[in-house]
Amino acid sequence: MAFTMRETVRSVIFGTETFAGKLFDVALIGVIFVGLCVVSLESVDSIESNYGDTLRILEWVVTAIFTIEYLLRLWSAAHPAAYARSFFGVVDLLSILPTWAGLVFTGTQSLVVIRALRILRIFRVLKLAQFSREASQLARALRSSRPKIIVFVGSVLCAVIIVGALMHLIEGPENGFHSIPLAMYWAIVTMTTVGYGDIAPQTPVGQAMASVLMIMGYGVIAVPTGIVSAELVHASRDHHERRECLGCGARDHESDARHCKLCGRALPSGRETGS
Amino acid sequence: MAFTMRETVRSVIFGTETFAGKLFDVALIGVIFVGLCVVSLESVDSIESNYGDTLRILEWVVTAIFTIEYLLRLWSAAHPAAYARSFFGVVDLLSILPTWAGLVFTGTQSLVVIRALRILRIFRVLKLAQFSREASQLARALRSSRPKIIVFVGSVLCAVIIVGALMHLIEGPENGFHSIPLAMYWAIVTMTTVGYGDIAPQTPVGQAMASVLMIMGYGVIAVPTGIVSAELVHASRDHHERRECLGCGARDHESDARHCKLCGRALPSGRETGS
Amino acid sequence: MAFTMRETVRSVIFGTETFAGKLFDVALIGVIFVGLCVVSLESVDSIESNYGDTLRILEWVVTAIFTIEYLLRLWSAAHPAAYARSFFGVVDLLSILPTWAGLVFTGTQSLVVIRALRILRIFRVLKLAQFSREASQLARALRSSRPKIIVFVGSVLCAVIIVGALMHLIEGPENGFHSIPLAMYWAIVTMTTVGYGDIAPQTPVGQAMASVLMIMGYGVIAVPTGIVSAELVHASRDHHERRECLGCGARDHESDARHCKLCGRALPSGRETGS
Amino acid sequence: MAFTMRETVRSVIFGTETFAGKLFDVALIGVIFVGLCVVSLESVDSIESNYGDTLRILEWVVTAIFTIEYLLRLWSAAHPAAYARSFFGVVDLLSILPTWAGLVFTGTQSLVVIRALRILRIFRVLKLAQFSREASQLARALRSSRPKIIVFVGSVLCAVIIVGALMHLIEGPENGFHSIPLAMYWAIVTMTTVGYGDIAPQTPVGQAMASVLMIMGYGVIAVPTGIVSAELVHASRDHHERRECLGCGARDHESDARHCKLCGRALPSGRETGS
Repeated sequence: MAFTMRETVRSVIFGTETFAGKLFDVALIGVIFVGLCVVSLESVDSIESNYGDTLRILEWVVTAIFTIEYLLRLWSAAHPAAYARSFFGVVDLLSILPTWAGLVFTGTQSLVVIRALRILRIFRVLKLAQFSREASQLARALRSSRPKIIVFVGSVLCAVIIVGALMHLIEGPENGFHSIPLAMYWAIVTMTTVGYGDIAPQTPVGQAMASVLMIMGYGVIAVPTGIVSAELVHASRDHHERRECLGCGARDHESDARHCKLCGRALPSGRETGS
Repeated sequence: MAFTMRETVRSVIFGTETFAGKLFDVALIGVIFVGLCVVSLESVDSIESNYGDTLRILEWVVTAIFTIEYLLRLWSAAHPAAYARSFFGVVDLLSILPTWAGLVFTGTQSLVVIRALRILRIFRVLKLAQFSREASQLARALRSSRPKIIVFVGSVLCAVIIVGALMHLIEGPENGFHSIPLAMYWAIVTMTTVGYGDIAPQTPVGQAMASVLMIMGYGVIAVPTGIVSAELVHASRDHHERRECLGCGARDHESDARHCKLCGRALPSGRETGS
Repeated sequence: MAFTMRETVRSVIFGTETFAGKLFDVALIGVIFVGLCVVSLESVDSIESNYGDTLRILEWVVTAIFTIEYLLRLWSAAHPAAYARSFFGVVDLLSILPTWAGLVFTGTQSLVVIRALRILRIFRVLKLAQFSREASQLARALRSSRPKIIVFVGSVLCAVIIVGALMHLIEGPENGFHSIPLAMYWAIVTMTTVGYGDIAPQTPVGQAMASVLMIMGYGVIAVPTGIVSAELVHASRDHHERRECLGCGARDHESDARHCKLCGRALPSGRETGS
Repeated sequence: MAFTMRETVRSVIFGTETFAGKLFDVALIGVIFVGLCVVSLESVDSIESNYGDTLRILEWVVTAIFTIEYLLRLWSAAHPAAYARSFFGVVDLLSILPTWAGLVFTGTQSLVVIRALRILRIFRVLKLAQFSREASQLARALRSSRPKIIVFVGSVLCAVIIVGALMHLIEGPENGFHSIPLAMYWAIVTMTTVGYGDIAPQTPVGQAMASVLMIMGYGVIAVPTGIVSAELVHASRDHHERRECLGCGARDHESDARHCKLCGRALPSGRETGS
């Protein structure tokens, strides 16, 4: 079966099944990391003033690689327009534009940090590896706890709005609570136990209220933890319960079941069929 | 069956079963959000000085809507006096009073933040939606862990009182621990791992004591988390363990099982034997 | 059966079975709280200067009550010497001594905060109430996780020692890490995620090392939480598994067991024997 | 069976089975602690100026003991070269070198803190004690959650890179975010809820972004906790679920069961069928 050159390029760039495809993805992650290091180091004044020229050359090398990669993707994609409009298509374009635009305009350089979003491609590489099962188990546990987590985050935000409004009233601008949005920011900083200390209550009433909020936030962290724990306990138990009924194909039997729970037929023993 | 206009209004305003009732609740939440944004933005100096007039007009529009809503609720409620004395009745009144009082007195405007409490109505809307089961499962888990959580919070407060009193003695006013209540506030800030840093121990003995408190607080957070996790693990397991086989008496069948997993006999359906 | 007056007093003061005994304990907690509030408020300068006299009178009233209580306990205790040497005996004495000594010496007043330890008596009152079962379940879970928690705290302390020594070397006194004990204090503040910010790494190497410590500490908090969660999951499961074998008296059968796991005799059904 | 002196010394120094071996390990831990205390106290200026001479003598005593121990280990080890290249071999050498080098060069003294790594030997002592089973259960739970934890830490680092780059763009050097690596450090400080406050966002957009990061970090801590909890729940349950009834095949018997809980037949003992 003969492949055209375009199909071969596509399988290397977009696919992860072939050896060349895996190698391409790993090499791309490497270049993304180099690019991120270059941008990061350029932002450090002392390094920029000493090694600025080297960094700028590396910057152009990385941009050149990304540009060629982007053009190859556009050319080899099954649906180029669909790729160009996809999340990664837009990120790929935005990660090369600032450097090219820097030739014409000034000040666009700093937008190159959008390149950081490319690091998300690492999750594609994870797909290849042994982490796949773990990642999907984590993802499933998080997905099935989503409704509970939405309820939880909603409650936290209600508490933040109410406490923020009250603290603006109690402490006032003279103690650093200049506006209600700022007071809400403080409430989030406090409730999540981050506690920068750039804004802190000064009046006894404000401190008493902050204490209540802290103990609440302290207890409240138990909720998402409990949700995820419960999901993972069940997720990994389900893992051990995968025997398939030879009669009706039902799975998900418990470890001590000897008859199919759907049709009643005797099940194969755990030893013969599974992990 | 003919409804009077008052009954129709009541079913829209208080009810959540009809389409109009749901729409009203969602629209009300929208207006509450707009009202909160207006009050929040008014508290930001730079926005107030530029868009103050627009915000004041919006403020009056929201107040007008809330006033009409309050009057309609009073008129259509089955027991108007009971509504007026209920939590939401008082909040509804307090959220419109400050704006009207601002016509006569000055300085009452800031009390309008009481309106933030109206955001709690969002939990009524949640009742409608798919989150109902999740919210009630969370609430049940929290309710059944309440005695454990009271014991836990009591222990934390005892530790706070003892450590606060000792730290006032050890560090003293010259290191920022001006009074025992302030030292207790510091103990809460430390034990909940918020750690503002506005007050921090300076003497070696105080720092040693603070270290013990931190490691205690670090370990102690495990307790409410463990409580809620255990409750949620059981809550979602109980879900699966309700039906008993009429043949062999085995329980612990999964929710989608139709045959006993041990003897293969058909199980009674979930509907007949209970939730 | 006639009781002597001493026996009656003893049952009221030390016992918790009779109504008078319960009332005494609750009233005592009330007086302890009043005493703590008085000491706390005396330490606040603005309150002390305005209401100092009232507070001093209240202080003497509380001290008088505590003195009478102490003498009654000494008199009515079955073994007075044993009581006087017990933890609460010493605390009870220490909580009245400073006020009396204040008549002779100056500066002993501040030692009155030792009275805060009396608040621990609240755990005696909890014994009476419905919280008993919960408290003992929590205590059992914590006790059976003790070896794991010792291993865990030991590991945390090792990390603190190593990181503290290294950070003193990396950052040095010029960045606030004046000595190794202080650097260890910083390591504890960081690892427990308290993060006061009074000491913070300034050099890039120190910040990188702090980042590793933070992510470690972040993950490490999962360990005590996991330990306590697992214990509580098992503790509350065991609770449902209490049926007693009529043949050999063995308990602790699982909820779906129909035969005693020790002697093989058929078990009574869960419905008949209780909760 | 006659032992040579070298074999006896080896069993005492390297072994933990004999009484002398246990005693040697415990004594060594004691000397390590003394050595760490000496180094720590030497770093405190006020103590150094008063007790400097005593500390220097103690320092040389500890160094002498460590030197003799190192030479004995080299002499008695079955494979001296292998020991010298092992982790503890290098640490043992590095913990004595700085003091000896201090006789010739100046400034090498501070390197003596490498001695802190010797504290890791404490884990060898734990092997002896009752904590062995607990430690290994913890270690097993952590090991089997490793892939999940790698996926989790990877996701956290991706978030840190993206948020760090964006915050450098949003806040800029004028608000303390001098470079991208510094902004990433801030992102780690925030996401782990440490929150020093030495760097904190000042612009409204930056504060909004920080709020999102905090709530994310708050929820994200639930993940490692859930992972470890689930592992520990299963680890201690697996302990109970090893034996299968020869009559009916039921598993899930408790560790102290002697008869099948379903059919009443005698169970095989735990010893025969494996831990």
